[in-house]
Amino acid sequence: MSSLHEPLQFTPAVAAARVTLVGAGPGDPELLTVKAARALRAARLVLYDHLVGEEVLELLPKSAERIYVGKECGRHTFSQEAIIELMVCLARAGRPVLRLKGGDPFIFGRGGEEAQALAAHGIPFEVIPGISAAQGAAACAGIPLTHRDHAASLVFVTGHLRAQAGGDDDSRCVDLDWPMLARPNQTLVIYMGVATLPLICAQLIAHGLSPDTPAAVVERASLPGQRCVTATVQTLPTLALLHGVKAPALIMIGGVVGLREQLKAVTAQAALSA
Amino acid sequence: MSSLHEPLQFTPAVAAARVTLVGAGPGDPELLTVKAARALRAARLVLYDHLVGEEVLELLPKSAERIYVGKECGRHTFSQEAIIELMVCLARAGRPVLRLKGGDPFIFGRGGEEAQALAAHGIPFEVIPGISAAQGAAACAGIPLTHRDHAASLVFVTGHLRAQAGGDDDSRCVDLDWPMLARPNQTLVIYMGVATLPLICAQLIAHGLSPDTPAAVVERASLPGQRCVTATVQTLPTLALLHGVKAPALIMIGGVVGLREQLKAVTAQAALSA
Repeated sequence: MSSLHEPLQFTPAVAAARVTLVGAGPGDPELLTVKAARALRAARLVLYDHLVGEEVLELLPKSAERIYVGKECGRHTFSQEAIIELMVCLARAGRPVLRLKGGDPFIFGRGGEEAQALAAHGIPFEVIPGISAAQGAAACAGIPLTHRDHAASLVFVTGHLRAQAGGDDDSRCVDLDWPMLARPNQTLVIYMGVATLPLICAQLIAHGLSPDTPAAVVERASLPGQRCVTATVQTLPTLALLHGVKAPALIMIGGVVGLREQLKAVTAQAALSA
Repeated sequence: MSSLHEPLQFTPAVAAARVTLVGAGPGDPELLTVKAARALRAARLVLYDHLVGEEVLELLPKSAERIYVGKECGRHTFSQEAIIELMVCLARAGRPVLRLKGGDPFIFGRGGEEAQALAAHGIPFEVIPGISAAQGAAACAGIPLTHRDHAASLVFVTGHLRAQAGGDDDSRCVDLDWPMLARPNQTLVIYMGVATLPLICAQLIAHGLSPDTPAAVVERASLPGQRCVTATVQTLPTLALLHGVKAPALIMIGGVVGLREQLKAVTAQAALSA
């Protein structure tokens, strides 16, 4: 906690960072920050995740050593603990590590846990933020995340399965605060929710969200072949299934989704969209 | 709404954009996206907001025409309606407009309203996302926005005053869904809330949030002289007042704020921080 007598200002001292946690953004390398692109071009050793775009990796020098530590749903290559152990081990051996994560490291990227581990070992690190999937999807699909007429708040959650306390695999559930999420006048963005989309929509409706609430799933936002399926909370699971929507995809629910119909017609990005 | 027979894919067609809504990020030009930096360097006519960093504007060509349309709290230079009218007017006159907004145009930037107006006039536009203030503050101050142990959801709201229906200026209030915001196990980020910080904290506590919940205000994140005051929901208003915290500043509330104490010691960015 701060007291009045502490100096509060903080100043970058980038050279000291032993590990750099870098947000790779939604996939299009043009959506990297300038700072992230610069860090990538200077990298010597990179630990990268499943959701990092192929074109982003192409920015790395050919000489850079790349270690894939991706976690795909259902088949984890590395556990989170193993990733942290490897990162700490390399950094302590004096090797500067670029830890590359899809989106923003501090939004559902478990960057917080990695930063804590680095701090616990006294390893200096830096965080370079990235455009999160929600922002990429919003800009590419023409769906504002906030709007005075449609959303007083913007809520991000993840839709992945969690083991229930004391439960076995069969009792895994999406453990979310449904009454909060089912409220009107907000934009709800669900990361990693494609596999559990039917359950999510059913729970939202069961907790009082109008079945007619506009809802969309945006697949591969900012990448070639990006797609957007718009529907309602009631109809989205079926439409997503029929269209074969697969991860990486983002679910957006709320009145703002209804604006896409109007915006997409003249959104330059969406020129070929339906 | 999508049907199965529509083509769902959409493809960039950037050349057609007459207006580009560009996110300027939190202030540090290094945190612009590569795409935004490129758009700035090629700009001929720019409408820019109050919260766009000075160093970001320095990327514009000297020949670029700059129009300041900033809205500062209490003294609006341009109304939102006037900004939209000007933008539409210039675009219809055949002038490509770069509309530059602090943070991300689709997160509390009123970019949605501007996009709607452009769509209504049939003016092709493109949206380039930006690092939002919350992401800039999180990375710079060493406060993760999500963390499995501290936050199942991430909520963004604005803390500015709204006129109450039928009320005069004296009855203006922060019109937020307090029971939702006062829930535990989430990260609450409040944009534009410095002026109303005492009211916000009092309401959160009155609606059941523990007074001991960690809370921070991050001033000028990513800019020279950035500061972070950490406290609790109970003590933050007084500390922020004593330190003379001023806008632009972001309020962050939740267990994740408690991690700063641990992270700042080794965050390279925060090397000089208390």
